[in-house]
Amino acid sequence: MRSTPSHEAAPAMTPAASLVFTTLLSHGPLTRAEVGRRTGLSPAAVTKAVRPLMELGYLVEGVDEEARPAVGRPANLVWVDGGRALFIGIKVTGDEIIAVLADLCCRIRISRHVPLKGREPEAVLPAITALVQELLTEADGFGVRVRGLGIAISGDVDRADGVVRYSPFLEWRDVPLAELAGTTTGLPVTVDNDVRALTVAEHWFGAGVGLSDFALVTVGAGIGCGLVVHGRVVSGAHGVAGEIGHLSLDPLGPLCHCGNRGCVEAIAADPAILRAVRAATGKQVSDAAEALDLAHDGDPGVRAVYARAGEAIGKAIGSLVNIFGPERVIISGEGLAAYDLFAEGIRDAFAASAFGTASQCDVITRPLPFEEWARGAAATAIQSFMASDTYEE
Amino acid sequence: MRSTPSHEAAPAMTPAASLVFTTLLSHGPLTRAEVGRRTGLSPAAVTKAVRPLMELGYLVEGVDEEARPAVGRPANLVWVDGGRALFIGIKVTGDEIIAVLADLCCRIRISRHVPLKGREPEAVLPAITALVQELLTEADGFGVRVRGLGIAISGDVDRADGVVRYSPFLEWRDVPLAELAGTTTGLPVTVDNDVRALTVAEHWFGAGVGLSDFALVTVGAGIGCGLVVHGRVVSGAHGVAGEIGHLSLDPLGPLCHCGNRGCVEAIAADPAILRAVRAATGKQVSDAAEALDLAHDGDPGVRAVYARAGEAIGKAIGSLVNIFGPERVIISGEGLAAYDLFAEGIRDAFAASAFGTASQCDVITRPLPFEEWARGAAATAIQSFMASDTYEE
Ligand SMILES: [Zn+2]
Ligand SMILES: [Zn+2]
Repeated sequence: MRSTPSHEAAPAMTPAASLVFTTLLSHGPLTRAEVGRRTGLSPAAVTKAVRPLMELGYLVEGVDEEARPAVGRPANLVWVDGGRALFIGIKVTGDEIIAVLADLCCRIRISRHVPLKGREPEAVLPAITALVQELLTEADGFGVRVRGLGIAISGDVDRADGVVRYSPFLEWRDVPLAELAGTTTGLPVTVDNDVRALTVAEHWFGAGVGLSDFALVTVGAGIGCGLVVHGRVVSGAHGVAGEIGHLSLDPLGPLCHCGNRGCVEAIAADPAILRAVRAATGKQVSDAAEALDLAHDGDPGVRAVYARAGEAIGKAIGSLVNIFGPERVIISGEGLAAYDLFAEGIRDAFAASAFGTASQCDVITRPLPFEEWARGAAATAIQSFMASDTYEE
Repeated sequence: MRSTPSHEAAPAMTPAASLVFTTLLSHGPLTRAEVGRRTGLSPAAVTKAVRPLMELGYLVEGVDEEARPAVGRPANLVWVDGGRALFIGIKVTGDEIIAVLADLCCRIRISRHVPLKGREPEAVLPAITALVQELLTEADGFGVRVRGLGIAISGDVDRADGVVRYSPFLEWRDVPLAELAGTTTGLPVTVDNDVRALTVAEHWFGAGVGLSDFALVTVGAGIGCGLVVHGRVVSGAHGVAGEIGHLSLDPLGPLCHCGNRGCVEAIAADPAILRAVRAATGKQVSDAAEALDLAHDGDPGVRAVYARAGEAIGKAIGSLVNIFGPERVIISGEGLAAYDLFAEGIRDAFAASAFGTASQCDVITRPLPFEEWARGAAATAIQSFMASDTYEE
């Protein structure tokens, strides 16, 4: 089945059809009138957008039986038929690969974790390939084809070319991952920066639904940031965007791997916190959990390290808010485990740095496990499958 | 003539019509096919967008006589009829008001400067009113109505409500300028932040034409920044955006009027440079020109002040580029007079702070006299006149 051309039955998408699809994905069953209202499209344009997607079975229309009124005609609703296609999303961390099999509504059907034996492409690619094969076998049970694979990797990723240009964390340079994984799996592959992939999922299904401008800030092994401006994820003209981790806050601050001093990442990311905790205590603290235990035991030097990290994160969020004025900033990432220690520093530094009414921005925290990151990768694969650029073909 | 309702004959604009209009404004006469290609609209949608604008005379269609081919049928072109409407644009500085009378193509027909006697609204508003009256009289000579007034003011400006919420420079708080100027002039008034207004002009007619993502950084009395992301000017959910002037670069740096230390504006804006030059020389340097003379005479302490300012501007541009990845950054503002002194610091600090491929961003300088800022204000008035939100009426 997988030997058929992978783009068969991929819908020829117009920009309007793409917009209608993602609107239904985020907001669930809607009347055609409501689709028109939310997208700004005329009734004729909605009909034109919906028709080919219904013919291919990606959208269905029917009566909402649960909302059937006591009197009068029930409303016809349109929704995405999640079961009509499957996608695989993969998030690569330094230690493991997390994969999900998701349906067209990006609901997770199956998820898997496998530990990594090494970080080099020669170790990671076979692990990805094996995991995809396993999920493809599982997918056979659903009787629906897997239409795409999304891979989320931290670092500078060129989604258009499918190349990981530089991943400091994995120490990769110019790895043509989409081509390599496409060859080994036979699937159309979308490769994107992991935080941008998670931002897509948050925009479609999470705390960014309905917002035209928001930021997702992730704290943990690194400091990442995904931006949505004017309703679309910002990718950067040269593939770099959201790099708040290298905002330089202090010319006398700790040296960063980027070569500058006092970057947010050199103060607030896990390795920086570990280094500072070791320096403060003289103890050979081995990981973030151990450092966190010391802080929770009340060690004032260790607590000061976290307070300083919180302050750096708060300043970075303040800068972000001053520059593009989002409606909301969502803080997530595995670093949230230390949020009680960061909170005051973040709040105070944000309040001090936000300029005028920018301080009204809604700053929230939201734990998102690695399955959500993998789901973000699946979302990028759905995005590619439903992308309006196929219209040009 | 001015007693007729000002919105008479304002076109009922759809989003598509607005897009077609601005495309023709930026790119001049185009065939309908070329309009379709540039906007992504279907031929039918282009026809639908163009028709009402042609009926009202804002667009005209005809043969380009100069490009008539030797053989075969000449191409029909569509363009904006600049002479069909007039707009007034005003930029308020601390010392003077600059006003332009511009046509529908935003070409400057007449410009005027008047000195300000005071900075309070009670001094500025009568000066604006008198200048508008003078230009309305001039406009009578063109036999075309003035359809709108745009006013550009530095600070936190709520364009939707027409309120100057806070202008540190003029020391204004919550001045309902659109309403006040509308009453005294009888024109529909658009009030916007001055750098955002200039960004609109750069996007339509300047170094931002054809770019979907660029930044305009202005140096001088303050440090400003306008952003275009995904083809539209960023206004900020709460009205604040582009505030790179308050990026905090050094916790031990000079105190800023925002209350923080080491802001870009506290190092690189004219007042900060003056303060630092006075401290370095012990001389009572009175203005930017005098400080510049000392630097050009070779005073090493003064040159170091400019070098530090350049470094701060370069870091700010690096941060901006890392965060949203524009195709181009345009540096402008009256501070360009010192650009030879800033240049090395900007270049080195930008190169050091830009992350990975972000350093490929095209950073250029572009002198834009205050007439261009006033033209930007006129552009915002044209934008309001042609805005798609009138569609909702
Ligand atoms: Zn760094
Ligand atoms: Zn400041």
